Amino acid sequence: MITRLDHIAVAVDDLTEGIRRFAEDFGLTLEGQEDVPSAVTSTAFFPIEGTRIELIHPLGGQGPVQKYLDKRGGGLHHVCFETDDIEADMARLKEKGYRLLSDQPQPGAHGTRVVFIHPKSTGGILIELAEHPHAGEGHR
Amino acid sequence: MITRLDHIAVAVDDLTEGIRRFAEDFGLTLEGQEDVPSAVTSTAFFPIEGTRIELIHPLGGQGPVQKYLDKRGGGLHHVCFETDDIEADMARLKEKGYRLLSDQPQPGAHGTRVVFIHPKSTGGILIELAEHPHAGEGHR
Repeated sequence: MITRLDHIAVAVDDLTEGIRRFAEDFGLTLEGQEDVPSAVTSTAFFPIEGTRIELIHPLGGQGPVQKYLDKRGGGLHHVCFETDDIEADMARLKEKGYRLLSDQPQPGAHGTRVVFIHPKSTGGILIELAEHPHAGEGHR
Repeated sequence: MITRLDHIAVAVDDLTEGIRRFAEDFGLTLEGQEDVPSAVTSTAFFPIEGTRIELIHPLGGQGPVQKYLDKRGGGLHHVCFETDDIEADMARLKEKGYRLLSDQPQPGAHGTRVVFIHPKSTGGILIELAEHPHAGEGHR
């Protein structure tokens, strides 16, 4: 029986740089590294607390998700990090050279304010930041 | 400050079929659906408990991850579900028409036994199943 989502895997050109990005820039904690010779792969794991899988589908056959589907079909699309201060993280990441897709946060699901970071500046992953309503008021 | 991984997004050609796949075939629980007109997107969310991000890099510049990087560069590569009985889930999913990439489980990271499911049969996602050592003995 399938019991849980074990991990999400990200292919990286440079493992040291990948570890630095997720630890330093996105605040995860490195659990460990392991070579898996049978899979011809070096791995590094970052534990994360509860999260969600979100299925996304174009509304009315339009918009960026429709363009994505037209170009490459369905599949893994982006990962989203929660932030308690989206403006501060936008400024911090922009300073580090990340390319934000909007100058201001945009409205997202569940009343969030969101911004996307271009995959060209993240090693090929479309990354979203989301601030939930009431962030910074001690609950979400 | 970035506080946690909020979600992982999967683009789907058919939202009803996508919901059925993750609920019925992979055992997640549907939390709800929401249209986000500002993003021209329909969404469906499945909460998941703690998981991990795994960075993967080719060992010695060879193997399937190197081929993936050569073909499309770094980026989201696969998701992995944990199972407590990999042979039973392999048989169940094969019966449902999923295309397994090996007839028998293969050795994975952390002493796991793993199998991959071809993206052509999953709506474009490379999905791995992993059975951890001591699965079914009440701990992992």
